[in-house]
Amino acid sequence: MELAITVQKILAVDAGGTTTRAAVIDASGLCLGYGTAGGGNPVSAGYDGALAAVAAAAEAAVAGSGLEHHTISSALVAMAGVTLRMRPAAIAQQLVALGLHGAVEIEADLLAMFHSGTHRSYGSVLIAGTGSVAARITDGRLDLVADGTGWLLGDTGSGYWIGHRVARAVVASLDGRGPPTALTALMLAELHMEVRPARLHGRPLVLLDLIDALYNLRPVELSRFAPLAFEAGGQDPVAARIVTAAASALAGTLDAVRDQQVQGPVVIGGSVARAVLAAPPAVAAPLHAALGHDEVIQVEDGLIGAAVLGLRRAGIPVDGDVFERLQKTVARFRDAARSATKKAPTK
Amino acid sequence: MELAITVQKILAVDAGGTTTRAAVIDASGLCLGYGTAGGGNPVSAGYDGALAAVAAAAEAAVAGSGLEHHTISSALVAMAGVTLRMRPAAIAQQLVALGLHGAVEIEADLLAMFHSGTHRSYGSVLIAGTGSVAARITDGRLDLVADGTGWLLGDTGSGYWIGHRVARAVVASLDGRGPPTALTALMLAELHMEVRPARLHGRPLVLLDLIDALYNLRPVELSRFAPLAFEAGGQDPVAARIVTAAASALAGTLDAVRDQQVQGPVVIGGSVARAVLAAPPAVAAPLHAALGHDEVIQVEDGLIGAAVLGLRRAGIPVDGDVFERLQKTVARFRDAARSATKKAPTK
Repeated sequence: MELAITVQKILAVDAGGTTTRAAVIDASGLCLGYGTAGGGNPVSAGYDGALAAVAAAAEAAVAGSGLEHHTISSALVAMAGVTLRMRPAAIAQQLVALGLHGAVEIEADLLAMFHSGTHRSYGSVLIAGTGSVAARITDGRLDLVADGTGWLLGDTGSGYWIGHRVARAVVASLDGRGPPTALTALMLAELHMEVRPARLHGRPLVLLDLIDALYNLRPVELSRFAPLAFEAGGQDPVAARIVTAAASALAGTLDAVRDQQVQGPVVIGGSVARAVLAAPPAVAAPLHAALGHDEVIQVEDGLIGAAVLGLRRAGIPVDGDVFERLQKTVARFRDAARSATKKAPTK
Repeated sequence: MELAITVQKILAVDAGGTTTRAAVIDASGLCLGYGTAGGGNPVSAGYDGALAAVAAAAEAAVAGSGLEHHTISSALVAMAGVTLRMRPAAIAQQLVALGLHGAVEIEADLLAMFHSGTHRSYGSVLIAGTGSVAARITDGRLDLVADGTGWLLGDTGSGYWIGHRVARAVVASLDGRGPPTALTALMLAELHMEVRPARLHGRPLVLLDLIDALYNLRPVELSRFAPLAFEAGGQDPVAARIVTAAASALAGTLDAVRDQQVQGPVVIGGSVARAVLAAPPAVAAPLHAALGHDEVIQVEDGLIGAAVLGLRRAGIPVDGDVFERLQKTVARFRDAARSATKKAPTK
C-alpha cells in the first residue's frame, strides 16, 4: 500500500477570474509540472470559456511534468460558481478527453483559497478581488459563506464596489453634487480624457463624455478604477473614505462568518484585500480592528489548496511536511514561469 | 394680426418614461384635444419606440380635437435625452408624416416639467421617478443641471436608487451581513418566493433563488422595489434609513442647482419625489429642510409646460390667465381620459 500511495500523481487546478493555474503533484506534495491559461471563472469567462481554460492549463501542467496522461490518478478543480450550481460532469468530460483517468472532483474556490494558506481544517477565509466573499471552514468543509453576491447585489468592499464608488464620486464632483477630488484627474487620465471648459444643456461637456465612456463599459469593468482609490487614498479625503468604507465592508463580511469559539487562521487572498492591508493603517483601520490579534495568512491564489484537497480526496494525508513541500515546489515552478514570461519578448 | 394669433393651434407633446401625452392648444391656452401613448423616453423605449409613441399620442390628440392636421401651426416635443444629443430632425419628420405643418421644436423634459408648475421664468425643478435630476431655470432657459446621470453613475434618491438599496439590504440580511428588516418579507412576497430553511454550499437556498431572480431583471427594473421602502418606512428602521438617505440625496441634487439670489418656485415632479414628500416628516426631514419656506409646486408631468413652451415659441405670450386656462382645460381632458380608462373592461 505504501508503494501504491507514493506513486499516485494528482492534477490540481485553480480556475481563477483572470488566470487558471494547474499543477501535477505527487503523494509527497512534490510539484512535478505547472501550467497556466486564461480566466476559468464560468461567471465571467462563460461556461465554455471556463472549460477551455481548465483544459489548457491542465494540458500544460501534464506536458510540463513529462508524465503520460493516463498516469494521473485523479484531478481536483477549484472553481468559483460552484455555489451557482455548476455541472461537474462537463468538466470531468473535458479532462477525460485529454486522456486523464480517475475521479475528477470540483470544489469551491473559497475552500481551495483557505487551504492555500493552511493544511488545518478550521478557520476562515476572506477573498477580495473583482468580487468579495468570506467563509467559515469547519472540519475541512465550507460551513458558512457570506457575500459573493455579485456586483449588483453585494460584493461589498470588492474591486467593483470600490471602482463604482470612484466613478460615482468623480461624476458627482463634475456635476457639482460632490466635493472636488484628486480621483477626477486620475480617472480622466486613465480614460485619456481632458477637462474642457465647454458646457452643453447646463452641464460640463467633459461630464457628458465621461458618462458616455462609462456606460460603454460592462458594469463589472468599473473595477479597473479601484486602484485609483488606493493611489489617491493617502492624501485625498474622498479616496480615503472609499478605501475605509471598503475596509469596513470587508470586516463586516468576515465578521458574518467568524465564530469566536473556533480557533484557526484567517486566510486572506485577492488583489483588493492585499491592497487594503497594504494601505495606510489609519485608512484601513476597520479591517485591522476586525482581524485583531488573529493569525493572518495572505495567499496568492487557490492552487496549493486545490492540491491539498486533491491529495486528501485521493486518500493521501496532508500534514505539515507535505504542505511545506507543496508550498516550496509550487513556488519554484511559479517563479520559473514568471521569469520566463519576463524574458519573453513583449508584443 | 390679433385674428391671426387667436386662430393659431399648436401641438404640445410630453414624452415621458412610461407615458407620452399630447395636447392641441389654441392661442388662449384652451385645450382642444388630448391623447396618450406608451413610453417616449429614447433611453428606455429606444429611439424608434420613442418616435412611435410621440406620433401615436400626437395623432390621438389631433383626432380628438376634430381639427384638420394642416391647421396645426407648430409643435413642441418635450423629451428626456435632449442632453444625450437627440436628433430633432427625425422627430420633426415623424410629425410631418402625420400631415402636420410648421416648425417642430424639441425641448428638455426638465424645462417642460418646470413650466407645468409655473409660467414664470426663474426658479428650480426637481424630478424623481425611476431616475432623478434637478435644474435651475434662469430667464426661461435651463441654466444648470445636476444629476440625471443614470442608474449606474448617479440618479441618487431615484426609484432605481431606492429599489437597489432595498434589494441590497434584503440580500445582506439573508446573508447574515445586515440587520433583519421587514423589507425581506415584502420583497419575497413581491417575487412570489418563500423563505425555506434549506441551505446549499453554506448559504440559505432562498438567498440563491433571490440572487438568480434579481440578476434576471435589467438593473433599472430594481426600481419596482422602491415602493416597498415607503410601505415599510414608517416602522422598519432599515427601510426608514433608505427613505431618509433618498430625501438627503434629492436635497443635495436640488442644492447643487439652486441660487439663493434667485427668487422663484421649486417645481417638484415624479412619483418618487411625491412619495418622499408624502412620507412621515421625520423620515423625509432632509428634503423638507432643503425646501425650507420656499414656494413648492407639485406637478404631475410635463404636458402643460410643453404647451407653455410651444405657445411661446409660436410668439404667443403666456400670462397668468392663459396658464390658468391651460391647467384647467388640460385637467378636464385628463380626467375624462382617466374615467374612460376606469370604465373600460379590464383585460
